[in-house]
Amino acid sequence: MQELTVVKIGGNVVDNPTLLSSFLKEFALIGSPKILVHGGGKIATTISKALGIESTMIGGRRVTDERTLDVVTQVYAGLINKKIVASLQSFGSNSFGLCGVDGASIISKRRAVEPIDFGFVGDPVVSKFGVSTFTMLLNNGCVPIVAPITLSTEGELLNTNADTVAQTVAVALSKIYNVRLIYCFEKKGVLLNVDDENSVIEAIDFLKFQELRAHGVVSEGMLPKLENAFEALKSGVDRVIIRSSSDLLNGIGTTLFM
Amino acid sequence: MQELTVVKIGGNVVDNPTLLSSFLKEFALIGSPKILVHGGGKIATTISKALGIESTMIGGRRVTDERTLDVVTQVYAGLINKKIVASLQSFGSNSFGLCGVDGASIISKRRAVEPIDFGFVGDPVVSKFGVSTFTMLLNNGCVPIVAPITLSTEGELLNTNADTVAQTVAVALSKIYNVRLIYCFEKKGVLLNVDDENSVIEAIDFLKFQELRAHGVVSEGMLPKLENAFEALKSGVDRVIIRSSSDLLNGIGTTLFM
Repeated sequence: MQELTVVKIGGNVVDNPTLLSSFLKEFALIGSPKILVHGGGKIATTISKALGIESTMIGGRRVTDERTLDVVTQVYAGLINKKIVASLQSFGSNSFGLCGVDGASIISKRRAVEPIDFGFVGDPVVSKFGVSTFTMLLNNGCVPIVAPITLSTEGELLNTNADTVAQTVAVALSKIYNVRLIYCFEKKGVLLNVDDENSVIEAIDFLKFQELRAHGVVSEGMLPKLENAFEALKSGVDRVIIRSSSDLLNGIGTTLFM
Repeated sequence: MQELTVVKIGGNVVDNPTLLSSFLKEFALIGSPKILVHGGGKIATTISKALGIESTMIGGRRVTDERTLDVVTQVYAGLINKKIVASLQSFGSNSFGLCGVDGASIISKRRAVEPIDFGFVGDPVVSKFGVSTFTMLLNNGCVPIVAPITLSTEGELLNTNADTVAQTVAVALSKIYNVRLIYCFEKKGVLLNVDDENSVIEAIDFLKFQELRAHGVVSEGMLPKLENAFEALKSGVDRVIIRSSSDLLNGIGTTLFM
């Protein structure tokens, strides 16, 4: 099977124009086929505030009411997505921005309102993923740039976690590609000692992950990321790489495999 | 050659959720292949005001500074575009939203700064139009929904007149399709008497247009629309239809041809 690279970047890159530009310059150099999934960042919060929309957070998660949905749709699928596409075009990468509504490519199920109603928030349904939309773009030499807004089966726009979108894209496409999924974040990888940036663990298989978890080595913030990564690996993704957004092309980082 | 329908809607439809929904229900019923180009509406002005961005108008035209460009990008290519796509998906039309940066589909030239600097505003270059991006979507059963943001040859996002975008799409694709271009607007068509909604002129060829213009029958607002329409016809578009957005499917309206 052909190799496909799926890269996910979050707020720390999106919010920093200098970091974003140097990241995109490197991303443009990765061989195709490839896909970029981007998160939201702080711009949506700034615009919400200016529009007098109060952000309601429950358990660290944002409640997406109708006005907030409008803001995240315009900021994620409009401003951030199109700026990334324009920038990649200037670096010679023929990118194409989309979100889950386009070609009904990412269908999601709105979260149950019990116990907590998070509003217009959904989780992607892998079995309904629009594989053909992505293969259409990839086979025509386009690089899909994906914003984390998805489509409910009832035709609503839904705000969706970008990590989950990246995972869904990787899992669904692993049926026809040999997929490596790269999560870019602030640290250089999974650290053996959270205070030592140079203690990156190079490779973790499922057995080693269980061992690290049992010994409490994995930090609280990293644990759900690793759990999701191993879910993706169990579902067909070839390997997951966790590395810093400023180390996209070199070898530093943690590789996860089954 | 196969028939292709290009429809353009403006602010009067985009700003009115009830009108927009009933328009989209009708648009979903038009046979494919088809393309929808949408304008901006008043939402961008409302959001600009809320963000404290002052709108500068010169000769009735908005100056697009950097912050205004951010707002129009997010509102046109994000909010309006994705809402239209989600709505069409719920009506069974597999639509796909894009703007000119996606697949570098609509390349434009930034306006000269003399005599008036309108900022980040550009006019599409037909010869650089991304025909293959549109045929990729159309051949795969997708309905392109186009927001009027385009890409400069320097990789900048540019705010672009939606009428001009529709005209460019129609002209560029007339090389491979038999194109009918439908401009939807408030009136039922070109009126013989501007105060009488029932005085729609059914058909106007170039000779009749010159005659109407010479006799001052064409109203001031309609004149540039007709001039652009005849430009499109001269450049290969089969026919241009001017009708009300609430009469998309029935026969009322004015048909322009050479």
